Amino acid sequence: MRVMILGGDGYLGWPTAVYFSKKGHEVAIIDNFAKRQWEMENGITPLISIQTLHKRIKAWESVSEKKIKTYIADLSNDRLVYKHFEEFLPEVIIHYGEQPSAPYSMMGIHHAVYTQINNIQGTLNVLFAMNRCIPQAHLIKLGTMGEYGTPDIDIEEGFIEIEHKGRKDVIPFPKQPGSFYHLSKVHDSHNIMFACRNWGLRSTDLNQGIVYGIDTDETEMYPDLNTSFHYDEIFGTALNRFCVQAVAGIPLTVYGKGNQKRSFLNIRDTIQCVELAALNHPKEGEYRVFNQFTEVFSINGLAEQVKQAGKKLGLNIKIGHHENPRIELEEHYFNPVHTKLTELGLKPHKLSDVLIDQMLQKIMANKHLINTETIQPRIRWKQR
Amino acid sequence: MRVMILGGDGYLGWPTAVYFSKKGHEVAIIDNFAKRQWEMENGITPLISIQTLHKRIKAWESVSEKKIKTYIADLSNDRLVYKHFEEFLPEVIIHYGEQPSAPYSMMGIHHAVYTQINNIQGTLNVLFAMNRCIPQAHLIKLGTMGEYGTPDIDIEEGFIEIEHKGRKDVIPFPKQPGSFYHLSKVHDSHNIMFACRNWGLRSTDLNQGIVYGIDTDETEMYPDLNTSFHYDEIFGTALNRFCVQAVAGIPLTVYGKGNQKRSFLNIRDTIQCVELAALNHPKEGEYRVFNQFTEVFSINGLAEQVKQAGKKLGLNIKIGHHENPRIELEEHYFNPVHTKLTELGLKPHKLSDVLIDQMLQKIMANKHLINTETIQPRIRWKQR
Repeated sequence: MRVMILGGDGYLGWPTAVYFSKKGHEVAIIDNFAKRQWEMENGITPLISIQTLHKRIKAWESVSEKKIKTYIADLSNDRLVYKHFEEFLPEVIIHYGEQPSAPYSMMGIHHAVYTQINNIQGTLNVLFAMNRCIPQAHLIKLGTMGEYGTPDIDIEEGFIEIEHKGRKDVIPFPKQPGSFYHLSKVHDSHNIMFACRNWGLRSTDLNQGIVYGIDTDETEMYPDLNTSFHYDEIFGTALNRFCVQAVAGIPLTVYGKGNQKRSFLNIRDTIQCVELAALNHPKEGEYRVFNQFTEVFSINGLAEQVKQAGKKLGLNIKIGHHENPRIELEEHYFNPVHTKLTELGLKPHKLSDVLIDQMLQKIMANKHLINTETIQPRIRWKQR
Repeated sequence: MRVMILGGDGYLGWPTAVYFSKKGHEVAIIDNFAKRQWEMENGITPLISIQTLHKRIKAWESVSEKKIKTYIADLSNDRLVYKHFEEFLPEVIIHYGEQPSAPYSMMGIHHAVYTQINNIQGTLNVLFAMNRCIPQAHLIKLGTMGEYGTPDIDIEEGFIEIEHKGRKDVIPFPKQPGSFYHLSKVHDSHNIMFACRNWGLRSTDLNQGIVYGIDTDETEMYPDLNTSFHYDEIFGTALNRFCVQAVAGIPLTVYGKGNQKRSFLNIRDTIQCVELAALNHPKEGEYRVFNQFTEVFSINGLAEQVKQAGKKLGLNIKIGHHENPRIELEEHYFNPVHTKLTELGLKPHKLSDVLIDQMLQKIMANKHLINTETIQPRIRWKQR
């Protein structure tokens, strides 16, 4: 397959690119290095520094003897999107090319507006370019479980059958996102659903849980192939942050009561899920939604698991309790359905002490690189 | 009350401004004349030409002895939004300041992207400026019944109680909008709902039906006060278009089977509804939704009413059947609830022969102004 990865320089995009390349697919990356710019703005870096995309691709070529094509383009430049789609003619587009941080989007008006415009415009350009150049292609779009919020009923996969006043219909599951970033993903989902219905495009919208992990089989093949692992407030995700805090001797930053429940998955499973979506493509005009995660934990539960795993490695980990900088329910029902990817064959890498062990050990080996100044939460949801 | 009207130069904004002014409120308008620019682009004009905003306001001053303040600003300029909010300190903001046409948004990629960015960014700026400068103010936001699409169950007013797998919750009514314009309104609604929950702002989101009518009591007071009445494919709404077609001797442009059902209201009722919302403001943090319309008709039913009303005036009106340029269900269930505004005291001006008569007569008096070249539909939803 010809697979084009939008945002292929990122935490998930890069491991996806090398994975598909190793499997023998023809792979191209589009990226504009915006993530590296956002890091620069905020004075943050991945724990282990990553190479430029050009060097990573060179390294991949020498390790694997496979080529990955690169297009340097901002998705908000519609001319370039059309041009690169026309040239590469992807059969599958895997779209990670968005501003992916909730705290970043909550830094103030310009970050909120930027996040929404950047994400919406990029995705609209992708949809229009697909309609024009590659209407049979399959768009795999990364969304988030955070689009749903925490309703008091079970969360279905994108659609729900509602019986109301004696009538029935299957309609989109209502969304109650909790940040301007999460909102941008909801907006995208509505736009994509419309494009499928209106133009007959095909898309899989992956509502992904919180990803953790440092490596995949491919990124481990050579040091220059590692991916961008963040532990700061802005781009660090929950478990990744906790593991770095554990090694740095900083009390784990649990927000509020810590009974918030969230869905999680290993970075290796992100790639497995995306592959399953790519291999089982939707019908013409079909817009389908998969809830992409393997386990649910409370934040307290997650912190406790890190603490226990650390104990075995001789780490004395404290759990801190921070005033919650976010506006979110700290006690709530949470039972999202996630059967569609399992039915397609997903074999989860579940979180166990072994996995946390491995993460902690890799971080311990790089402990000297931790910048403890970027760890405490400072961005607040309520700005007045 | 201090009432600020965003988009106060428009079809609904202007009559709203003079209405609130006459009632003794302190009124200010923000506009950037974007609508006049879109008209220019497309070579279309209102049936009866309207004065510049400056002249309209002068005319209003001499007729009513009341002043209306004007701020010329694009809502996508956040500095100006902050500045004008800080200066005028509105208690109520009535937000019509968006690109309001579905066909305009479907003209191509640039019109789609423009519509979404313009509408989303303007509304985000309004929300941030409210949060900073006037957190107690009440935002009355114009949305559309088209946000809901045509589900096979009754449409509730913004929220629906869902019983699912033995649990219950009241959650936002799912949206299935039918154009990039309608999508932009759905995106706005999600953003506003979040701002109310997150910052404690107050807002009423008005999901409005299709508006018809030429005059209000205030615009009739003096010729220079009339509002922008469109009959072209882009800004003309269904009944307004049919009435002009009837007078011009053009078969009424019914799309497809014509069994599409839509909700309608008189322009006088738009203003009545907005006033009812303004006089009954929501609690801190409350986001409420009113379905704002008075009657439901099928497009065929509407065409038939125009035909019958015309017959009495000696017009021989033909009903045409066009291949539908839109993608929409032409046979569907449609039963939207609309009790909240009635409970607040709405007294509808229902559509009757008398009202259609008046419209037809006013148009007949201006028949020489009709540009028949702008009437036929050319913008197609399916662009491939």
